[in-house]
Amino acid sequence: MEVAKSLQQIPSSYIREILAAACDKNVISLAGGLPDEKTFPIDLMKPTLESLCEMPEVFQYGSTAGYGPLLDYLKGYLLLPDSHSVMVTTGSQQGLDLIARAYVNPGDTVVMEAPSYLGAMQVFGLVQANIATVPQTEFGPDLDKLETCFSEQSPKMFYAVPDFHNPTGVCWSLATRKKVAELCIKYDVALIEDAPYRELRFSGEAVQLVSDFCPQHSIVLRSFSKIGSPGLRVAAVSGKTPYIEPLIKIKQGADLHSSVPMQALLLGLLKHNDFGQHIEAIRTLYKSRYEKLFTELKSQLPDTCIVKPVDGGMFVWVELPECDTFALAKSLLANGVAVVPSPVFYPDPESAGAACG
Amino acid sequence: MEVAKSLQQIPSSYIREILAAACDKNVISLAGGLPDEKTFPIDLMKPTLESLCEMPEVFQYGSTAGYGPLLDYLKGYLLLPDSHSVMVTTGSQQGLDLIARAYVNPGDTVVMEAPSYLGAMQVFGLVQANIATVPQTEFGPDLDKLETCFSEQSPKMFYAVPDFHNPTGVCWSLATRKKVAELCIKYDVALIEDAPYRELRFSGEAVQLVSDFCPQHSIVLRSFSKIGSPGLRVAAVSGKTPYIEPLIKIKQGADLHSSVPMQALLLGLLKHNDFGQHIEAIRTLYKSRYEKLFTELKSQLPDTCIVKPVDGGMFVWVELPECDTFALAKSLLANGVAVVPSPVFYPDPESAGAACG
Repeated sequence: MEVAKSLQQIPSSYIREILAAACDKNVISLAGGLPDEKTFPIDLMKPTLESLCEMPEVFQYGSTAGYGPLLDYLKGYLLLPDSHSVMVTTGSQQGLDLIARAYVNPGDTVVMEAPSYLGAMQVFGLVQANIATVPQTEFGPDLDKLETCFSEQSPKMFYAVPDFHNPTGVCWSLATRKKVAELCIKYDVALIEDAPYRELRFSGEAVQLVSDFCPQHSIVLRSFSKIGSPGLRVAAVSGKTPYIEPLIKIKQGADLHSSVPMQALLLGLLKHNDFGQHIEAIRTLYKSRYEKLFTELKSQLPDTCIVKPVDGGMFVWVELPECDTFALAKSLLANGVAVVPSPVFYPDPESAGAACG
Repeated sequence: MEVAKSLQQIPSSYIREILAAACDKNVISLAGGLPDEKTFPIDLMKPTLESLCEMPEVFQYGSTAGYGPLLDYLKGYLLLPDSHSVMVTTGSQQGLDLIARAYVNPGDTVVMEAPSYLGAMQVFGLVQANIATVPQTEFGPDLDKLETCFSEQSPKMFYAVPDFHNPTGVCWSLATRKKVAELCIKYDVALIEDAPYRELRFSGEAVQLVSDFCPQHSIVLRSFSKIGSPGLRVAAVSGKTPYIEPLIKIKQGADLHSSVPMQALLLGLLKHNDFGQHIEAIRTLYKSRYEKLFTELKSQLPDTCIVKPVDGGMFVWVELPECDTFALAKSLLANGVAVVPSPVFYPDPESAGAACG
């Protein structure tokens, strides 16, 4: 049975190899955003895990949009206005997939940052989007190029990771956020704001979500994988109600609904008195690791390599002199360190030129 | 933001309305295959639920194909040969969605029984398949019409529910199974065998899977929603390895992987010493309910209504004299009983003519 044409066009993703390498206990993995297993708030989840046996309703079919008590809680937690809805997805990856399937026709233009998150490129590739890219500056996307792209290509959506970008670690400045929102409104482009690392800020002050400045033109993906547990596969997607309804329709065919016991478990975790303290502890841990990594990279790499500081998240991007980054990554892996060569983060790998650790 | 053309073509599904009606405690629901909450084997799951806290690895990202120990167990449980693979999906609904996305191009022909499972029609509609249907007899699909369809339309796949069909309750005879397998081999059509009700046989002897007779031309969807718990959203799909690999590739973009704690929970349930006994208890319960329903329908409906006996599963199909089945369903709901009018089970509702309870 021949596979569908849409699948034939997708290059084999690097994520699987990353996860495989990261699972090897002898490898120091700087590849993939895997949270440290030791940080999982299992103690905070334990009371809910034990009470699931007393909740037969979570073992029944649930509603597609999500487990009612969790949806109610999330509306407050995410400070959603009445005009907005939230739905639960099987991880943010599913949220992204549902958005692509609900809105993108083959050939529709989707704008992404370059470099960009692998899983997003895969999803937009599967719906055969025309992917346009805008290069990153240290403050976020190049605004002139973004406006040119919006005005010339009339894209349907702009997918972005404004907080501690995967893979560069860049966090957009407030001015950039306001300007991007303005452009989305002006050119009627939907902003798809993916915020899995937002809570992992370890220095500086939190900046508002980009979508706060264009709430009628945005969908926000909220992950709990980095602050809770990725294994649960429970995430949330929010936006104005007419934006969310088509996603529910697609999700119905995609998996009917996400695991209900896992939604109840996430709710218990979010409501736990010590959850805020848990996030603080994660931030402190990742800060210390980042500082160690950054200091070592700065002191041990030659001056021709550029390492930019970050204020949070899980990624550091290293710019290298022209070289074969795949060969370098292979050689590093042979020495027990996994990194990801930069070309895989570009829809058009020819335009890439740096390696990321 | 305008929704994708593929979504515009999908009529609003009846499943959501069914689930909503079934949730009303004042309604006797004969609509939708919701297992009885009181049958959920929570006691059998309790030891695993309590031990999850000692298994930090299940809270980490997992592999796309599924939780290793569960996959290993399923290979034996499903008696898979070495040439075959199994993968875990977020419910069988996702298995179906992945198959459609991995294999069906817009316009490719997919054969279904008529009537057919709503969720399958939705999934094949989303990939814009050309849906061809074959009418059912009491032994399974009309074999002459199936062969004509295979030879004239060169379909890519034939989706079927051979055990206690949703919505008719029909269970294919052994002869029909062998002949369908023969036709799939002869015309190189992949059989998609959906078996969610297979374990719910309450009379007669189990018949082999259709795919046992065409293992190189089939994919089997195995659900644990009816014998375990639908809320977990953990199912399995199996087939020869080259058939399964493209599904894994799509799943990576769709949700990375299914919930790992829920996969561990299912494994604990399947391995529990009392699981076989639990299935026996469910069969006995559904048998008694079926007998009550069947007897009452037989005795209280006029002779112009035809009710066929079934040997298992969750569905009874009632043939009525020509009437407006939607109006009838509405009137029944006003009287506290939910049923589904038959036209919704036909890709082409014009060809329908009976009501199902």
